[in-house]
Amino acid sequence: MTFEAPVKDLMFNITHIAPWSGDAVGDLDTASAVLEEFGRFCAEEIAPLNAAGDRIGSHCDRGRVQTPPGFREAYAKFMDMGWQGLRHPSEFGGHDMPRSVAAAATEIINAANMSFALCPLLTDGAIEALLRFGSPEVQQTYLHNLVSGRWTGTMNLTEPQAGSDLALIRTRAEREANGTYQVSGTKIFVTYGEHDLAENIIHLVLARTPGAPDGVKGISLFLVPKLLVDESGEPGARNSLRCQSIEHKLGVRASPTCMLEFEGATGFLIGRENAGLEIMFTMMNAARFAVGVQGVAIAERAYQMALSYAKTRIQGRHVDGSAFEPVPIIRHPDVRRMLAHMRATTEGCRALAASAAGWQDRAQSAATPELKAEALAIAEFLVPLVKGFCTEMSLQTASTGVQIHGGMGFIEETGVAQHYRDARILPIYEGTTAIQANDLLGRKTLRDGGSTARRIAAMIAQTENALRQGSPAAQEIAAQLSCAREAFESVVAHLVAVGPTDLNAAYAGAVPYLMLAGNLVAGWQLARSVLVAEAGLEGGGDPEFMTAKIATARFYAQHILNEADLQRARVMDGAASLLDVGF
Amino acid sequence: MTFEAPVKDLMFNITHIAPWSGDAVGDLDTASAVLEEFGRFCAEEIAPLNAAGDRIGSHCDRGRVQTPPGFREAYAKFMDMGWQGLRHPSEFGGHDMPRSVAAAATEIINAANMSFALCPLLTDGAIEALLRFGSPEVQQTYLHNLVSGRWTGTMNLTEPQAGSDLALIRTRAEREANGTYQVSGTKIFVTYGEHDLAENIIHLVLARTPGAPDGVKGISLFLVPKLLVDESGEPGARNSLRCQSIEHKLGVRASPTCMLEFEGATGFLIGRENAGLEIMFTMMNAARFAVGVQGVAIAERAYQMALSYAKTRIQGRHVDGSAFEPVPIIRHPDVRRMLAHMRATTEGCRALAASAAGWQDRAQSAATPELKAEALAIAEFLVPLVKGFCTEMSLQTASTGVQIHGGMGFIEETGVAQHYRDARILPIYEGTTAIQANDLLGRKTLRDGGSTARRIAAMIAQTENALRQGSPAAQEIAAQLSCAREAFESVVAHLVAVGPTDLNAAYAGAVPYLMLAGNLVAGWQLARSVLVAEAGLEGGGDPEFMTAKIATARFYAQHILNEADLQRARVMDGAASLLDVGF
Repeated sequence: MTFEAPVKDLMFNITHIAPWSGDAVGDLDTASAVLEEFGRFCAEEIAPLNAAGDRIGSHCDRGRVQTPPGFREAYAKFMDMGWQGLRHPSEFGGHDMPRSVAAAATEIINAANMSFALCPLLTDGAIEALLRFGSPEVQQTYLHNLVSGRWTGTMNLTEPQAGSDLALIRTRAEREANGTYQVSGTKIFVTYGEHDLAENIIHLVLARTPGAPDGVKGISLFLVPKLLVDESGEPGARNSLRCQSIEHKLGVRASPTCMLEFEGATGFLIGRENAGLEIMFTMMNAARFAVGVQGVAIAERAYQMALSYAKTRIQGRHVDGSAFEPVPIIRHPDVRRMLAHMRATTEGCRALAASAAGWQDRAQSAATPELKAEALAIAEFLVPLVKGFCTEMSLQTASTGVQIHGGMGFIEETGVAQHYRDARILPIYEGTTAIQANDLLGRKTLRDGGSTARRIAAMIAQTENALRQGSPAAQEIAAQLSCAREAFESVVAHLVAVGPTDLNAAYAGAVPYLMLAGNLVAGWQLARSVLVAEAGLEGGGDPEFMTAKIATARFYAQHILNEADLQRARVMDGAASLLDVGF
Repeated sequence: MTFEAPVKDLMFNITHIAPWSGDAVGDLDTASAVLEEFGRFCAEEIAPLNAAGDRIGSHCDRGRVQTPPGFREAYAKFMDMGWQGLRHPSEFGGHDMPRSVAAAATEIINAANMSFALCPLLTDGAIEALLRFGSPEVQQTYLHNLVSGRWTGTMNLTEPQAGSDLALIRTRAEREANGTYQVSGTKIFVTYGEHDLAENIIHLVLARTPGAPDGVKGISLFLVPKLLVDESGEPGARNSLRCQSIEHKLGVRASPTCMLEFEGATGFLIGRENAGLEIMFTMMNAARFAVGVQGVAIAERAYQMALSYAKTRIQGRHVDGSAFEPVPIIRHPDVRRMLAHMRATTEGCRALAASAAGWQDRAQSAATPELKAEALAIAEFLVPLVKGFCTEMSLQTASTGVQIHGGMGFIEETGVAQHYRDARILPIYEGTTAIQANDLLGRKTLRDGGSTARRIAAMIAQTENALRQGSPAAQEIAAQLSCAREAFESVVAHLVAVGPTDLNAAYAGAVPYLMLAGNLVAGWQLARSVLVAEAGLEGGGDPEFMTAKIATARFYAQHILNEADLQRARVMDGAASLLDVGF
């Protein structure tokens, strides 16, 4: 049940897969030291709270929420060590680390304890929104304490009648003479909406002002602190909001999911009136990326547990009859298949996330507006893939982790079933897989006529060419990558052609398109890893790691990447039969 | 949350898909009346206990197990109405119904409440074993009360060190002067090993006699009653066994999973000494088939809930912009895709199970030894497909059911998460998917050189020919069926060729082979359904049902059956890369 942060693979990705512009050796050494230290902290202080946190859960009593034993102490250490500020600007007390390093840290803490990690994850989102859209005064008042982790942040979007469809939001905000707003309404599914970890909670709340336009164009964003901040910057009087209850959930049970009642709470407008959704999207894009990384995290944890069990559980004989004595189950071909599938999926998704983070970093530091625009377009194309593909795959991986444990996997004390339960929220929150797919298809593909998609395909073709100069394994991978890339190109051309005339048919293929694209880009990153690994082997560096990387990439190509053609068929040939099914 | 037994589709399968020899109209009318009545009973009396049973669970206190509220009363009605005897011989008080009808009933009660249904499911297995291997005295003593449901049955196989590998069993049985045995040892994972539903429990226990050969050839089977039966046939003195504890599980929480301690308990040998495994396999084959049907059942229940939610949840607008008002989510193409996938998978798996039950019935009633042998070979080939494929697919379907509910799906009160948890045991108990795949590959394919597999492929080719005379939809389905059948034939030829020289490579493809075969046979049954439906439409019968059946089969062919080629590649091209991954 012990957890070890996969720092080596994370650093491989930061070094070679994320096209991180600041990859001087000095920076990489810092990144490595930071991740080693964070990995140790999470393994020692956060991971041990995971199982008990799940069993005990958070509790709500008359508006106060108590987190499970140990969470307060662990959060205090997390704050004291300054981990919340990892990727945030030093101007507000942060450490200015690149996205690719921050993404690695996000994976580590989520693998240790997803329920715990949700609190800093939401704070990151709030910081992001205030950095981009907060007034200087708001930034000065709130950002230092958020970046230090002394206060935490939340997102208040969902209402009982408004989930995926934010146009249906009813929470009201009325402007007062002093420029503040009175916010009233009921929000549900507010992660860490109330808790006992920090002295204040900064809620970001979507609401409508009187007379605002209907639908999503009439939504504004408000900052509503739990405790109002006085002129000295310290939290003072309680604001008029209250946690009514917390949900009894399938997973992430230690993380309190709150129903908050706002009754004329004092709020501060962020950005302009009626521009709330756009701002929330910024926050959501960061959160969506992070949720994709949670998928990698839970897969990594499930893999570590399954691997450890498979090495020690003695059961059955070799299928080839080569020995009479019972063997550890890892010797059975199908157990190896399941473990290889878990590992390949996890490493592929990790590399996909690293690559997306790298494009975000590149967009930040681009030398010209053209390069910045290109990097941004690619980074934004990749967000729904990270969110959609990595989380859908995490369900499979967590499920396979249970399967490898056999009957023991079904017993809660074993601990592996928790991952199966925890993972189930990932393809749902911060936008379901279908919402990601609609984003990918509508905003990221149809809107630019497929040009970003084609740009990515062209880069993949370059990787194929390089692989063809490599080992037989590299050439095999090139062949599979080529098939998958051609399937992707066909699908993009098809969707761009069909979209304008038959949106129903195009959107019927949105999720298979997302799964194809995510699979392709993950497989592409593993293929790039093979180029690195083969060069590394020639240089004599770390042969065990590099050989394993090549084997994993080859397995991915021949067992997972080759799903691409099936997804192509579903998109291109499957819409009519889908739309023909009546209910 | 209400449940309605899908009697119409079940009867369609009994009538047209199960090649049931006794399909005179009178029998079908009886079957239909029985299933209607059983469906009503399960919907009214069993289904309402499902959610509370999950929440409250069974409890063990000093050896006594208390089932959740309502279970005792419902079981008493189940017994009084004679449902336990449905498929068992009238000689012992049963109703002699064919397997295909019994399988439909198994689906209905498991869809209503899987935890409840496990008790009669295990009793069925015990009855089966005693019918085939019990001495006349044992049959007279136990069968009437088992068939009536007055007593229940269990299987005691697993021990802490012996799960999939029964060779490792340590429970001992020593022969007494009077011919009985003293059974001592610890058994775990005994479903309904102790409970308060019936006055006696008949345990079937695998154990070793002193000096028995090592491994599976030294295992014998014993009947060990909870209460010893006196000469008048009534239960009397307590036997020396005790429930030590019950497990805290991910799902099927109302079903008590017991650790039983046998301390010199009186047991009666069933069959010969050292022949226990063979007998247990008979019982397991019936249980494996039933577990496959549980997969169909949980999928059906999840589908009904998701469909009902999708019709009533208002969220979002038409993707084609055809209306401004929010619509029920069932109008969104991807929700339709998910629902169609759930329905097609469920109907395909149901038809696969019906076909397997039909071959079992045909084996029973075959006119010649040759026909009997052929029917038996096909029936036995299909058992691992029903168990392996239907349960693996049920995981996907239950998971999709949560997804359609969005955030509400993650809240336990909604009730749909229970199916996701319950389903997770199905690919594990009664032999994991890998164990099924090894059975399919070793005993059912390699042993006869692939001849049963080729016989099935030949029948499928006949269906393709018939479809090519049909509608455009039928012709499309024929094309997909043909591809899948050819993939299956290639795989069988490959495995038969590779097996003798490289068992590791062959078994590395066992699970993909099982998934391909299960998918093919399920798709084949839906294709046969299309022939029936198109003929039915010409005859004017039930156009709504028949049109829906064709649409579902077409969706299956273009979204699910076409996975066959991917599985082919995994088996034929994937073994080397799999075996090359080191851990």
